[in-house]
Amino acid sequence: MSLPAYSQYADYLISSPSPYIKQVLINRPSRLNAFTDRMWHDLGSLFAQLSHDSSVRAVILAGCGDNLSAGLDMHEASQGDILNGGTEKDESIDGARKAVRIMRYIEEFQACVSAVERCEKPVIVILHGLSYGLAIDIACCADMRLCTSSTSFSIKEVDIGIAADLGTLSRLPKIVGSLSWAKDVCLSARPFNATEALRVGFVGEVLGTKEEAMSRAVAVAEVLVRKGPVAVRGTKALLNHAREHGVAESLRLTAVWNAAALQTGDVGEAVAAWKGKRAPRFEKL
Amino acid sequence: MSLPAYSQYADYLISSPSPYIKQVLINRPSRLNAFTDRMWHDLGSLFAQLSHDSSVRAVILAGCGDNLSAGLDMHEASQGDILNGGTEKDESIDGARKAVRIMRYIEEFQACVSAVERCEKPVIVILHGLSYGLAIDIACCADMRLCTSSTSFSIKEVDIGIAADLGTLSRLPKIVGSLSWAKDVCLSARPFNATEALRVGFVGEVLGTKEEAMSRAVAVAEVLVRKGPVAVRGTKALLNHAREHGVAESLRLTAVWNAAALQTGDVGEAVAAWKGKRAPRFEKL
Amino acid sequence: MSLPAYSQYADYLISSPSPYIKQVLINRPSRLNAFTDRMWHDLGSLFAQLSHDSSVRAVILAGCGDNLSAGLDMHEASQGDILNGGTEKDESIDGARKAVRIMRYIEEFQACVSAVERCEKPVIVILHGLSYGLAIDIACCADMRLCTSSTSFSIKEVDIGIAADLGTLSRLPKIVGSLSWAKDVCLSARPFNATEALRVGFVGEVLGTKEEAMSRAVAVAEVLVRKGPVAVRGTKALLNHAREHGVAESLRLTAVWNAAALQTGDVGEAVAAWKGKRAPRFEKL
Amino acid sequence: MSLPAYSQYADYLISSPSPYIKQVLINRPSRLNAFTDRMWHDLGSLFAQLSHDSSVRAVILAGCGDNLSAGLDMHEASQGDILNGGTEKDESIDGARKAVRIMRYIEEFQACVSAVERCEKPVIVILHGLSYGLAIDIACCADMRLCTSSTSFSIKEVDIGIAADLGTLSRLPKIVGSLSWAKDVCLSARPFNATEALRVGFVGEVLGTKEEAMSRAVAVAEVLVRKGPVAVRGTKALLNHAREHGVAESLRLTAVWNAAALQTGDVGEAVAAWKGKRAPRFEKL
Amino acid sequence: MSLPAYSQYADYLISSPSPYIKQVLINRPSRLNAFTDRMWHDLGSLFAQLSHDSSVRAVILAGCGDNLSAGLDMHEASQGDILNGGTEKDESIDGARKAVRIMRYIEEFQACVSAVERCEKPVIVILHGLSYGLAIDIACCADMRLCTSSTSFSIKEVDIGIAADLGTLSRLPKIVGSLSWAKDVCLSARPFNATEALRVGFVGEVLGTKEEAMSRAVAVAEVLVRKGPVAVRGTKALLNHAREHGVAESLRLTAVWNAAALQTGDVGEAVAAWKGKRAPRFEKL
Amino acid sequence: MSLPAYSQYADYLISSPSPYIKQVLINRPSRLNAFTDRMWHDLGSLFAQLSHDSSVRAVILAGCGDNLSAGLDMHEASQGDILNGGTEKDESIDGARKAVRIMRYIEEFQACVSAVERCEKPVIVILHGLSYGLAIDIACCADMRLCTSSTSFSIKEVDIGIAADLGTLSRLPKIVGSLSWAKDVCLSARPFNATEALRVGFVGEVLGTKEEAMSRAVAVAEVLVRKGPVAVRGTKALLNHAREHGVAESLRLTAVWNAAALQTGDVGEAVAAWKGKRAPRFEKL
Repeated sequence: MSLPAYSQYADYLISSPSPYIKQVLINRPSRLNAFTDRMWHDLGSLFAQLSHDSSVRAVILAGCGDNLSAGLDMHEASQGDILNGGTEKDESIDGARKAVRIMRYIEEFQACVSAVERCEKPVIVILHGLSYGLAIDIACCADMRLCTSSTSFSIKEVDIGIAADLGTLSRLPKIVGSLSWAKDVCLSARPFNATEALRVGFVGEVLGTKEEAMSRAVAVAEVLVRKGPVAVRGTKALLNHAREHGVAESLRLTAVWNAAALQTGDVGEAVAAWKGKRAPRFEKL
Repeated sequence: MSLPAYSQYADYLISSPSPYIKQVLINRPSRLNAFTDRMWHDLGSLFAQLSHDSSVRAVILAGCGDNLSAGLDMHEASQGDILNGGTEKDESIDGARKAVRIMRYIEEFQACVSAVERCEKPVIVILHGLSYGLAIDIACCADMRLCTSSTSFSIKEVDIGIAADLGTLSRLPKIVGSLSWAKDVCLSARPFNATEALRVGFVGEVLGTKEEAMSRAVAVAEVLVRKGPVAVRGTKALLNHAREHGVAESLRLTAVWNAAALQTGDVGEAVAAWKGKRAPRFEKL
Repeated sequence: MSLPAYSQYADYLISSPSPYIKQVLINRPSRLNAFTDRMWHDLGSLFAQLSHDSSVRAVILAGCGDNLSAGLDMHEASQGDILNGGTEKDESIDGARKAVRIMRYIEEFQACVSAVERCEKPVIVILHGLSYGLAIDIACCADMRLCTSSTSFSIKEVDIGIAADLGTLSRLPKIVGSLSWAKDVCLSARPFNATEALRVGFVGEVLGTKEEAMSRAVAVAEVLVRKGPVAVRGTKALLNHAREHGVAESLRLTAVWNAAALQTGDVGEAVAAWKGKRAPRFEKL
Repeated sequence: MSLPAYSQYADYLISSPSPYIKQVLINRPSRLNAFTDRMWHDLGSLFAQLSHDSSVRAVILAGCGDNLSAGLDMHEASQGDILNGGTEKDESIDGARKAVRIMRYIEEFQACVSAVERCEKPVIVILHGLSYGLAIDIACCADMRLCTSSTSFSIKEVDIGIAADLGTLSRLPKIVGSLSWAKDVCLSARPFNATEALRVGFVGEVLGTKEEAMSRAVAVAEVLVRKGPVAVRGTKALLNHAREHGVAESLRLTAVWNAAALQTGDVGEAVAAWKGKRAPRFEKL
Repeated sequence: MSLPAYSQYADYLISSPSPYIKQVLINRPSRLNAFTDRMWHDLGSLFAQLSHDSSVRAVILAGCGDNLSAGLDMHEASQGDILNGGTEKDESIDGARKAVRIMRYIEEFQACVSAVERCEKPVIVILHGLSYGLAIDIACCADMRLCTSSTSFSIKEVDIGIAADLGTLSRLPKIVGSLSWAKDVCLSARPFNATEALRVGFVGEVLGTKEEAMSRAVAVAEVLVRKGPVAVRGTKALLNHAREHGVAESLRLTAVWNAAALQTGDVGEAVAAWKGKRAPRFEKL
Repeated sequence: MSLPAYSQYADYLISSPSPYIKQVLINRPSRLNAFTDRMWHDLGSLFAQLSHDSSVRAVILAGCGDNLSAGLDMHEASQGDILNGGTEKDESIDGARKAVRIMRYIEEFQACVSAVERCEKPVIVILHGLSYGLAIDIACCADMRLCTSSTSFSIKEVDIGIAADLGTLSRLPKIVGSLSWAKDVCLSARPFNATEALRVGFVGEVLGTKEEAMSRAVAVAEVLVRKGPVAVRGTKALLNHAREHGVAESLRLTAVWNAAALQTGDVGEAVAAWKGKRAPRFEKL
């Protein structure tokens, strides 16, 4: 059962494994955590709420059961018309009008997925079991990626005839070092494993089992929540900005940002704690 | 002998090792496949043709004989005045006018090399034997890079006194993960080998011999040509765009792109084939 | 003792281990080479001078003693008010006015650090011993990074409650391949070692000891200074530009740049030397 | 009374003066249409709804009574703490934490105002009477600006000690021709009149009275709604993109956009109607 | 009859009204100079040739007869399928494949029109009589625009159901001062006249008749051809770059550009001529 | 005689015509205020000092005597080698090396001129008499431009064989509305007058005489210095940023900027003064 403040998200299980840490589990294990329409809408609302919740300093995202997610629910998608904005069978409207509906649908979907990236707090995702299609789109929005030794990854979209449009193609080239590899896995939709994901830098660490990965994620998150929250928020925001701006632009924003951020008691508290060899206590953010 | 439709390219051998796959071999092995003026002009025309040829869904590029290419033909370059737009010995024109000629020459040359990148179909390049200078410029335009265990790579240009101007400096920092490494090999012109190329992500895979690499490239290409061509074309285009745009820009273009691309029979065919456990059959593109 | 031309930099030891190579040692080993205000101001002036000194073709940067640097001098920083522009205790001025002072302070500081990047000549930094905080900011400005097997790296800033604002956040995502890793080390401030630094591409090579690293740096620099200085200068400038511009922008600047740069005697000299199997002799730059 | 579909917006009067045209009147004339918190939140929802309403092809925005709007409600703003995110009097939180609250507040406010710009349908705003502060921010989001001969304009924000942060500073330099003029009115907060607004291109036309301006806006809108809605939507989207991108970027998006948009029956209908000298009838969008 | 070097362009009349000046007349007056497929292909080739022709220092573009051009030939366009890449009636191919053909068609068309902008020499266009649709696209690529008092302008595309895709939407917001006006004329397709065109800065000058405009264009061009051609070429290139780049980017390119361009004898010649009160004589470019 | 704090600038006369306003007069009337090398170096230092001087809230720039400036001192320029980095007559160095010297020279010169733009306080320039070449470069950096009815303007550079490289080409297209006009005056170097300058928006106002213009500038500046200095500084900075960034980028920086800037007592003081119908009193900045 989710925490009361988060009880409205029927397909997610939200708990707090440790102070200031929220753990989000995608909760549709009977269908490999495949995403329905409601699920991705809720993903957007959920991470918007986490972003401004002052009792949260780090978020862990994983799946209930054995898999992160098999991706979009193809059953729902092929019955309804989720892939093309509900327009497939409607012969009466022309291609341009179909395009308008599709564009609106994709942009709404993208905005929900991007909420994971926009979340002010660091997000650690655990890729485990099947991590296909939309699971990769979402994982690309997280700040850190961990996986288990048995995770099966695939940028699956070309296998159903489409270019991935929920963020993987936009973010992957900025996340990993080898564009040759990124093109390979995106163009071929071939599955790849944990060793390969680690080698190219897609994940930061490989753990043996899901349980070990969950423990590791909590341990990493516990490090983060002991830091000054003003510093952590700024670091995430500035790294995301730097990823896609030139150095001069990035330095400029950094100076403007820190002009306010340095007016924090956290600096004094951090230094005092360090001198006093004690844990710092930071105000909520 | 090249395929009839491609017989006009005297320095290239074009064949089709498998349906929908075109294999392009640089054919000047007696001179280590060094590029003459005619060769790079033809490279541009050839890849423009491949780009729109509906019988092509993937392209493999390699060299006849032992090497991909030793780079620009220095004999032609030092006899003629290829390096400086034909202006070196002409004392009568001033530095600004020489600059105009050089700029026009470089921009024409760049456009021909970039045709490999602009090709709508995925391009797999096999770096083998000597892969120096212009060979690297061209390889940086390909989507996937394979090599053999004995390939010798070098970004050779500083050894003849020039900063590489045909694309390596522009593309390499976006292709590999370590800028420290990219600066090292570009500034020093030192040769590096397959192990190093794999480690930094410049190539995606190392094969034992050229023959093995050719087989591997065909196998990879055969995977690609079995995918929906609309999806493959979009994936390539969107990854190239994402490489150099921010996430918001990239998501926006993706939504506009897929508004048309999702209106394809390929999605239905892919899903039907998957349900029917058969190979999908896609229309030409 | 520094070379006469560089004797005004009291905290730096500048020597010439080999023709055309300048070696800069941060010289405050008793305080782990921690940076005072004077030191970072001088860093800016020093690299501006090196940039235009025609007797310099490559620069090596390291620390006197066992460490590159422990970062900003926290003693000076916590006594004075270096972290927030001298405004901490002044209750009489409002938050907006404090922000102005901080912004001016950060921008001046950033400009001094960036002088290492703006230096026209390649800079090789040796990370050894403690390489924390500001040491990483500076190292991110260098062209090549070497380290020793015992180097301890840390992007330390969040530990004192601030988001790093002197360049690491702006440059690191462009320098290494894995954004997951970059976020990890920036958000957690956890130390990492040479093996990890090499794996993610932050450093290009790990040497056993500082002495070996110094020798290696000299050897690498000696390769660079034997190249045409026009080509080396252009290669550095164009790679830095390419790092943050699209391919079309980058190719355009390259063509304009080389329109002048190819009007150099270095090309002829390089080719002649290569034909004559002798070392080329290039004019000063 | 508003149209039923739009009855939830208590501070706006929404009617349809002509088929496919929606007229939005800000309805708080007793307070010079000054904006409360609820009003700008509703502005965002209202224009999001108009954007996707297929019975809407053009929107007219004006104020009930004599004025467009005097701007933000200073009474609410100075009682509550609207200007600084509710943080002014709270001594217990530091400057960095105040900054976080302010930043969130501004970004939410900006998003609501920008909904006018994001609206897929053309928006014509009538500036009349007092058009100060927030009124200008909103007007900058519209596609066309009309005014009356007695309109009083002012970019009022510096008069209350702040740099305008709801869009005027971001959009004005892209909307008018003279940056010297834009700086003048933004830095001085001086009122300017209709003649000046027309001369610098801020408004496209000056009408004698509000009634004449309303009639004129309906007449202009009637021209727009008789055009193909696919073409109108694309023209607005592409002009807004072109405003802030280079020509090559813009041409590229245009080609991708029209690849779908040209697959419309509107072209055939438009041509047929033109040949048949009759009014075209376009499907809904 | 055209000049021999330009005789291959059947639909253009090319003459030289004065040394170094080429005058290009669109030569299909019987059809209001409406553009056929061959005509826009030739436009691209023609301006590429003019760009590098050392006997050309300025180009004047106008129409034979009374009009610049009524735009695209709607007869050819509605018979063939020029508007949608020849795909309209082909039911057998899906929307995505139609989109590919349309995209290729638009991009080829755009490239031909953009040749006018890419031409290294200044281009002066005379808008006279009907100047509709494609005529405006082309005029937006010119450097200076003159018109006659009776010119009728229209951005006509929405009248046939499409968003203009050959450059007007991409360039107009950068060419005129009032975005409100640009939106008005693009969204409504309403004709506008010379007075309005001058007021918003679309044209630089209004002349009474076509003859007067031709004379004026020659007079302006004669001023340009008496300037140093290195300076004129640079000024055009740098202004086009500045139009769409930030100041820092633009200053940087300017410095790189002039590093070569200042190595011209033109400076000495210009200064000497000025001192000697004689006309300067510049070498060809 | 200049104010004591500014007495080191021998070629400038600095006074304070009103509290918080500094008036800078270029003081070389015997040579039409033509700029020597020392003068543009000092211009950079002077405006850097004004930028951070808390007793300054607005700056007025004009020339001693009848003219703003005739531009670069051609006598010094043609005797020395100011135009080409001192390299003209040195046959012994090649074109690439000359280019390096020129590039360094231009970039230093640009940085000094840009100091006028970087000045945190608003700068009002009065163009009077001859305002040629460098005078226009400098005026483009100011925030507001006034002129007299007899001012003669010229972007003079092409007349001496060079493309203007000190900022006019980079800034003019962002300052005025008509690119056709900007190209005309930059390509032709033709003089233009006050009426034309006003019509295209280059200047904001035309005054009868220099004296009237000086009075008007003081009056405008007096309005500015009575505003909250935090708001004025932010407005200038954000408008300069908006001029060259997209709306989303600009809104983002604005939110970050104001997160600190709204923490000012100026807002309360401005509101209180407005309610109390008295002049506000703002703290120094």
